[in-house]
Amino acid sequence: MSRTEVNGMSAPQGEAVRIDGKAMAKAMTEEIRQKVDVLVEQGHGLPGLAVVLVGNDPASEVYVKNKALQTHRAGMRSFMHMMPESTSQDELLRLIADLNSNEKIHGILVQLPLPKQIDPAIVTNAIDPAKDVDGLGEANTGRLALGLNNGIVPCTPLGCLKLLQSVHQDMTGLHAVIIGASNLVGRPMAQLLLQQNCTVSIAHIHTKNIQELARQADILVVATGKAGLVRGDWIKPGATVIDVGITRVPTAEGKSRLVGDVVFDEARQIAGHITPVPGGVGPMTIACLLHNTFQAAQGAL
Amino acid sequence: MSRTEVNGMSAPQGEAVRIDGKAMAKAMTEEIRQKVDVLVEQGHGLPGLAVVLVGNDPASEVYVKNKALQTHRAGMRSFMHMMPESTSQDELLRLIADLNSNEKIHGILVQLPLPKQIDPAIVTNAIDPAKDVDGLGEANTGRLALGLNNGIVPCTPLGCLKLLQSVHQDMTGLHAVIIGASNLVGRPMAQLLLQQNCTVSIAHIHTKNIQELARQADILVVATGKAGLVRGDWIKPGATVIDVGITRVPTAEGKSRLVGDVVFDEARQIAGHITPVPGGVGPMTIACLLHNTFQAAQGAL
Repeated sequence: MSRTEVNGMSAPQGEAVRIDGKAMAKAMTEEIRQKVDVLVEQGHGLPGLAVVLVGNDPASEVYVKNKALQTHRAGMRSFMHMMPESTSQDELLRLIADLNSNEKIHGILVQLPLPKQIDPAIVTNAIDPAKDVDGLGEANTGRLALGLNNGIVPCTPLGCLKLLQSVHQDMTGLHAVIIGASNLVGRPMAQLLLQQNCTVSIAHIHTKNIQELARQADILVVATGKAGLVRGDWIKPGATVIDVGITRVPTAEGKSRLVGDVVFDEARQIAGHITPVPGGVGPMTIACLLHNTFQAAQGAL
Repeated sequence: MSRTEVNGMSAPQGEAVRIDGKAMAKAMTEEIRQKVDVLVEQGHGLPGLAVVLVGNDPASEVYVKNKALQTHRAGMRSFMHMMPESTSQDELLRLIADLNSNEKIHGILVQLPLPKQIDPAIVTNAIDPAKDVDGLGEANTGRLALGLNNGIVPCTPLGCLKLLQSVHQDMTGLHAVIIGASNLVGRPMAQLLLQQNCTVSIAHIHTKNIQELARQADILVVATGKAGLVRGDWIKPGATVIDVGITRVPTAEGKSRLVGDVVFDEARQIAGHITPVPGGVGPMTIACLLHNTFQAAQGAL
């Protein structure tokens, strides 16, 4: 696609380039599978991921099964632990203690949300930091916030970073605006982009003139869960747009489809690069979980 | 001072209000002293702070002595540990292990910078998180980044927050721009202001158009160590300016004086509220160290 340079950003002539998260995730998974083969040839055991689900939330069941399946496809072991909705915090903590001391398990993931009798902060923090493949415990969060490179980075922002790196060799001095300040995405994303020497702005539900701020972004990461929040005129011409949102909405034909937080058909007229939904951030989140599990297994060698 | 409302901010007519950090710090210290008296009346031991200095940096010696003196004035015990420049990392780690297990010590502070044979990240992280009164270890950094309230917050950004709270009852929706992305000030400051529901932008040495970004700030926190970086025309009329910088510069008369990162005489014509240097953030940093030490002692009861 032919482009002209405007203010150091490539400005679109025609449509934005789609960033193909599905293809990148597939390549990453294949690469991990090959590395697992090497581990096995060297006589090491298989990396193992334990996925814990408490309760019967149908969406969580789908996520958990998909994570386990992808782990299996990458040549690693996955262990599913499905516990009833009535599980007490102590029971869950006992399971985590068992998994922490189990040498076949290198990564532990507790699917959120948890039933209300369980404090997610206590549970997340009970996972051995070396096995905390979601990177959401205090130790890994602290390492990331301190700019250290010895921690495990949460999967979704790590996936977003890899998507961004496929577009930008060097992000130094670019203005990254992140919409959404969650612990799962927005806040760790801010840390990762600071490490890339971006100027970082974090916007959220309380932000005034959010459109004006978004329009300053060379890199716009949107993670609000609010379908269609970001319109075309929120976007700086040529910007790179990463859409973390994924919401199922009904169509006129009485069916449903998945959409992001960005109005794709408007945004692709303005942006330089953009992730689609589905097929953008979603597959990369799972690929990064496999990446983190493999890294954790390597760290335990 | 008479003010008019412009865009929801109070715009100055005449000079900015000085935020008197010295007076606030004095009041905080007095309040802590009274709480210490209550502890003692209840039969508890005195809170104790261990300050560790390695080497002979003259500036660090002044800081350390001042911290110890202020701790004493607040009615608490202070223990000074002065170690030679040649101290090995293992020797320092052994001292920290002793202090961690010493019941008379509730807070441990290792003065930075350390000699080059010692890794500051390893040392900082060896301090028991419950005694990490500088709040710079992984656990406390992680708690702050996760928005939890059970950690110890680094003294300088905590002091800045208290100064801001003396001006703003509610910071929801204000745009805070932080210049400087250090682990000591800028990054934890960003976390604290996100918790106050500010929109937060972090600028640094790689930021382009930094003046333009600064001019959007309702709250401007400057922590670069670059004397006189921020001029009057960087400031939005009516903004609150917190100047963390402190640099000794020569005067025309062959003497020296302390100046901040903000050109005070220009900024006070534009800002709504501003901290002076000296007498702004500096005294509050030490008062917050006393606050953290007292809190750590209470936590150990």
